[in-house]
Amino acid sequence: MDTITRYPDRARTDREDLDHVLDTASTCTFATVLDGQPWLVPMFYARDGDRILLHGSTGAGALRHVVAGAPAAVSVMLLDGIVVAEDLYHSSANYRSAVVRGTIEQLSGNEALDALNCLSDKLIPDRSTEVPRPTPKQLAGTSALALTIRPGQWTVKARNAPPTRTDTPGPWAGVVPLRTVAEHPIPAPWISDEAPIPTSVQRLIAGFELS
Amino acid sequence: MDTITRYPDRARTDREDLDHVLDTASTCTFATVLDGQPWLVPMFYARDGDRILLHGSTGAGALRHVVAGAPAAVSVMLLDGIVVAEDLYHSSANYRSAVVRGTIEQLSGNEALDALNCLSDKLIPDRSTEVPRPTPKQLAGTSALALTIRPGQWTVKARNAPPTRTDTPGPWAGVVPLRTVAEHPIPAPWISDEAPIPTSVQRLIAGFELS
Repeated sequence: MDTITRYPDRARTDREDLDHVLDTASTCTFATVLDGQPWLVPMFYARDGDRILLHGSTGAGALRHVVAGAPAAVSVMLLDGIVVAEDLYHSSANYRSAVVRGTIEQLSGNEALDALNCLSDKLIPDRSTEVPRPTPKQLAGTSALALTIRPGQWTVKARNAPPTRTDTPGPWAGVVPLRTVAEHPIPAPWISDEAPIPTSVQRLIAGFELS
Repeated sequence: MDTITRYPDRARTDREDLDHVLDTASTCTFATVLDGQPWLVPMFYARDGDRILLHGSTGAGALRHVVAGAPAAVSVMLLDGIVVAEDLYHSSANYRSAVVRGTIEQLSGNEALDALNCLSDKLIPDRSTEVPRPTPKQLAGTSALALTIRPGQWTVKARNAPPTRTDTPGPWAGVVPLRTVAEHPIPAPWISDEAPIPTSVQRLIAGFELS
């Protein structure tokens, strides 16, 4: 892990802490360097052991560039609450965040298929068992990518505390907790309102309620 | 605006669309390039006209590097729903995202103070009017930064639709909407449970309910 020089009390050094952040969030910002400039795109991801799995279209130019060995990083952020102190300087956020750096490996064959199923199943649990296998054409149009988590190449930071007390009492201080919730599912236009919600989607909804 | 070559139906070209995304979200991933590697950190931000305002500690090394003229970018993502199709390939997300590229300008004096107030007030509306002004020491410890939004240096993408219908009917298809909600505020340990919630915090909570 990198040495955190700012807010040392907010750094976390256990791999378990990294896995917890990665397994709780579902989207990341993926970054690489293209012509010397930072290149960013939001993406879904899934952790599978020491790998962060990603996917994209095989037609996307920057992804091809990344596969060719450019340096890459992903950043994940969970905003858990707004910390309201008695002055602006001490106001803050409760959050969990992670950055993982490395290079991207392109997966192929069964490994690619497993990665795409894993990406889907993380978000919509076991959906891959409810639907047809991807066709060869669909697989050919999708890049399955992996970024391996290596020692010294990740950082985790978190804050989970009341505001810092200041010398200048002001009107109220505390935390406003935030969370992401799933609302009632909306069937596609060709799906009956009475159609049963499959287990995968029920678990997706429950996951947001619990996290 | 950049030309979007993937999913052209998802690109948005109006500056209004950019402003809407930037004004709805509150956190971004900030990126620069350090020793040829992508360097990422999650941050709060606020848009003020053509500027994206950011702040950080004056002691943070990478921020000093950015101020020295390194290329920078911010990425913002709002995940509005999970799109469940009848196969994995067509499953997707409803989202709004923006990437803005440029270089960072360090603000000073009244401009820095205004930027810090703006950053706070975007998140906790008018909180800056309820609390003491930052002290000179606090101001000296905080970098107020601005990234100017320039034509051709930003992209906005959005999807807001049911799933694409596939040739292979599967169990259910539809959208699970997601949203971020504020929960009941938790007073700091030294603040009475009966202390009135100030207008700023009430507006913070209402903002999450409406967005």
